[in-house]
Amino acid sequence: MRDASSNGHGPDSPASSPISPDDVRPLSSWEHSFPASKRVTVGDLGVPMREISVNDGKESVRVYDTMGPQGHDVRQGLPRRRSEWVKKREQRGDTNFSQMHYAKRGEITEEMRFIALRENVEAEFVRDEVARGRAIIPANRCHPESEPMIIGRNFLVKVNSNIGNSAVTSSIEEEVEKLQWSVRWGADTVMDLSTGSRIHDTREAIVRNSPVPIGTVPIYQALEKVNGKIEDLNIDLFLETLVEQAEQGVDYFTIHAGVLLRYIPMTAKRVTGIVSRGGSILAKWCLAHHRENFLYTDFERICEVMKKYDVSFSLGDGLRPGSIADANDEAQFGELRTLGELTEIAWKHDVQVMIEGPGHVPMHRIQENMDRQLSECHEAPFYTLGPLTTDIAPGYDHITSAIGAAMIGWFGTAMLCYVTPKEHLGLPNRQDVKDGLIAYKIAAHAADLAKGHRGAQERDDALSRARFEFRWEDQFNLSLDPETAREYHDETLPAEPAKTAHFCSMCGPQFCSMKITEEVRAYAREQGLDSDQALEKGLGEKAREFTSGGGELYHTA
Amino acid sequence: MRDASSNGHGPDSPASSPISPDDVRPLSSWEHSFPASKRVTVGDLGVPMREISVNDGKESVRVYDTMGPQGHDVRQGLPRRRSEWVKKREQRGDTNFSQMHYAKRGEITEEMRFIALRENVEAEFVRDEVARGRAIIPANRCHPESEPMIIGRNFLVKVNSNIGNSAVTSSIEEEVEKLQWSVRWGADTVMDLSTGSRIHDTREAIVRNSPVPIGTVPIYQALEKVNGKIEDLNIDLFLETLVEQAEQGVDYFTIHAGVLLRYIPMTAKRVTGIVSRGGSILAKWCLAHHRENFLYTDFERICEVMKKYDVSFSLGDGLRPGSIADANDEAQFGELRTLGELTEIAWKHDVQVMIEGPGHVPMHRIQENMDRQLSECHEAPFYTLGPLTTDIAPGYDHITSAIGAAMIGWFGTAMLCYVTPKEHLGLPNRQDVKDGLIAYKIAAHAADLAKGHRGAQERDDALSRARFEFRWEDQFNLSLDPETAREYHDETLPAEPAKTAHFCSMCGPQFCSMKITEEVRAYAREQGLDSDQALEKGLGEKAREFTSGGGELYHTA
Repeated sequence: MRDASSNGHGPDSPASSPISPDDVRPLSSWEHSFPASKRVTVGDLGVPMREISVNDGKESVRVYDTMGPQGHDVRQGLPRRRSEWVKKREQRGDTNFSQMHYAKRGEITEEMRFIALRENVEAEFVRDEVARGRAIIPANRCHPESEPMIIGRNFLVKVNSNIGNSAVTSSIEEEVEKLQWSVRWGADTVMDLSTGSRIHDTREAIVRNSPVPIGTVPIYQALEKVNGKIEDLNIDLFLETLVEQAEQGVDYFTIHAGVLLRYIPMTAKRVTGIVSRGGSILAKWCLAHHRENFLYTDFERICEVMKKYDVSFSLGDGLRPGSIADANDEAQFGELRTLGELTEIAWKHDVQVMIEGPGHVPMHRIQENMDRQLSECHEAPFYTLGPLTTDIAPGYDHITSAIGAAMIGWFGTAMLCYVTPKEHLGLPNRQDVKDGLIAYKIAAHAADLAKGHRGAQERDDALSRARFEFRWEDQFNLSLDPETAREYHDETLPAEPAKTAHFCSMCGPQFCSMKITEEVRAYAREQGLDSDQALEKGLGEKAREFTSGGGELYHTA
Repeated sequence: MRDASSNGHGPDSPASSPISPDDVRPLSSWEHSFPASKRVTVGDLGVPMREISVNDGKESVRVYDTMGPQGHDVRQGLPRRRSEWVKKREQRGDTNFSQMHYAKRGEITEEMRFIALRENVEAEFVRDEVARGRAIIPANRCHPESEPMIIGRNFLVKVNSNIGNSAVTSSIEEEVEKLQWSVRWGADTVMDLSTGSRIHDTREAIVRNSPVPIGTVPIYQALEKVNGKIEDLNIDLFLETLVEQAEQGVDYFTIHAGVLLRYIPMTAKRVTGIVSRGGSILAKWCLAHHRENFLYTDFERICEVMKKYDVSFSLGDGLRPGSIADANDEAQFGELRTLGELTEIAWKHDVQVMIEGPGHVPMHRIQENMDRQLSECHEAPFYTLGPLTTDIAPGYDHITSAIGAAMIGWFGTAMLCYVTPKEHLGLPNRQDVKDGLIAYKIAAHAADLAKGHRGAQERDDALSRARFEFRWEDQFNLSLDPETAREYHDETLPAEPAKTAHFCSMCGPQFCSMKITEEVRAYAREQGLDSDQALEKGLGEKAREFTSGGGELYHTA
């Protein structure tokens, strides 16, 4: 099984979770996952943050939060926070509802103001980046439950996770649970890759309960409508599917409009051919009809639907490489150039665009992907799957790909599509989804640090201070996964007092390098040590003090 | 707890495994971990490789192997394959046994020939890199059981793991088991960080049973000898400890000779001070005596011991940063400069040297570490811990650090010291050791690919071909961890026939992008498609064939 079949691309594959015995247990409360945290809102628009209490409540650290409002009835859906904002636009008779449309007119929408607070930047900056096409705000006007967020390389790096109904029958509650599990662990957007007969109702439940933008791959549903017969696909059926999904509130569509006839034979020499499911469908359609991809030839008709709802394009990379051997080849870069052309057409309609990227790429070829994407696609945001930096570790592809994801995030990718440990092997369960998300939150945050994103290092510093001061609970609570950090610690030192003890399990109370450092620090402070002279002077004194005190730095319990 | 206390640096901390319930089970056989594999030897020196049979035995793929001879009695130790080579040198009256010494004289030792076969390079190249100091062969003449390996940036990137006896009493057999578990999962060297009263006997058992070089941090044992009273440490006691360990066959010593008086106050302003255990010990000694570090002032006396046995220096980075905030600061780079000076002194004695590196470094500051190390330390091999690219994910630091490790490996680091998921939290158990090693084998291999190391991509290509051709068993067997890959697959499709089926669990038999790609490929081949003209022509034909055949590509079971 390759990318196409499992989690090929977020936007491009049925990474649905099966009902494993583990997964039928109800979700724990979010407070259980994040002790000492509370959800707070900021400003008149109610921008959500998670506030972590540290230092016995004397301080707090606020972190970006994607969980959304809690405790609502799944059948009712989330509060419709954007309803009033959207209604206002509808009432004044707008016909193009895209955020890019408003941005280009110089208007700052409520969504932009919300995002400015969330990202700690100016609203004007948000507007200008959207107007320029360098960032998108996926926010269908029919998805008023969403908390606005932005995808662009001058903002925090985002992470997508995938859900989708499983082969076995699963209830709507179970599908919503997968969504809730994803957003708890930090998914900034979620792609619903469901298939099968209940696809419409499943999607409805997901969108109504999602605080984050929802993406889909509409060709999957279109294919259902023609009973899986690829050659029966056509543009009218496809547009009808787009409208159906747009009416439900889907925020972005993966559309493989760059799979052109002339690129298909370029994949013949590859080690792993075409691995994108969507790419394969379009390739087969082209072969069956000997005609150019209808998504390409009728692209402007698609734009008309997009702007009516403000659905963003996620232009799919149907010809992305599925192995190290196939990275950066002519098929891949040919398609990328076409996606750049399509970007300009979409922008002509004020439709928002991001571009999907690979896949499998060795480290030394990652930068070229980013550079070409920026220049060919006119700086539209890049949305990459990994990339995986080697093919030899099935079962650990969340790691092979987190390496590539962190790097390409630093280089400028705006959103990373996660990969779970089950990539290439099977369907992810709940634990796999969490493992994939944590690996990707690490990659995204490492990229934010490397880009010098304003304030990104605060959490690292707070955690490191807690670590240095042996504030164990703070160290756990500030981490991406407090429960796991605590559990690992308790395996070695389970007793409660150990978590406030001023020593570590490995060194014990007798020797502790941190205590020594504290001494060094106190000493330097006392002496006002900024020069070697002061040091020379001071060390003599310290030597006397040390030996008279037994030379043991650790005095108190 | 910080780096110093858990796994701070491979070379610098007691990352011992506790006896967890999981760990008392005997190890499974290596054949269980690597099905369809056999150990083979190449050439007259018996260079070991693991040969993986693929394609129903019609082909095979050979991979570098660290497991060593199997099935020997732990009390007897491994066969002494280097005895004859060493005896010859002893008999002719050599006094400096270092590989560098022979290399500088133009001699190609058996160790160099062995390594040339193992790395697929010329023996002259091995010799020249060692003579130049750009690579080391850690091979104490008193450790004849070792299979020679090389650490240098023009060779495969290596990985170190740490073991050490636990607080609870553990038998010698258990310690050797930890060693065997590490080398099974690809550890190229192992550091024995044992402490306590049985330290000598434990080390003896480890060295006698180790096919890979063993490293230690002798200051730990020296400290035991003065009952933990740091101020009682002195050079004579230290040299006595070095001789004791060198006689046993330890291949490299971490020595923190660069922790100078003048650097200590530079750590006072840090968020996390001094996190290296060895660094802390030396800092405390300097403060207690108000004297310069005795490892620095008596460095040449240490060199005399090293060359007598051919023990390599691993010059410790006692002042490495323990947090993102402290990366690349004046204390760290001050010490690095001193390590460069010491490198030149060691080389004057023909003693082999590698340099230890951080620690915690954000991605955008990694390259500077490598560049400075190369220039300050005259291209002596770099041996880094990670680095961790963010501080916010305790419980997942094998991932935060695999990102940094892969990058710095690409940039030129010769050996990566692994980090387990328990880093900063507790003692790693068997599963943690394996998880850490797999993450680091991924990082090292990704670096080899990025550096374009000869033949590195063969395994990726073999696995990708197997994946594309639905040879599930081959895909598992070629992976870093066949057992886990198979297990993950079986969760979704447990039936045996599924592993030979030409479809994937996610797509099922009806739709399969790989089948489509195969069609594209067969078609391109038929038509000799190298031009658009041929495509144009061919697609018309294909379209007719498709629709007449029902347009369904998947025909057979």
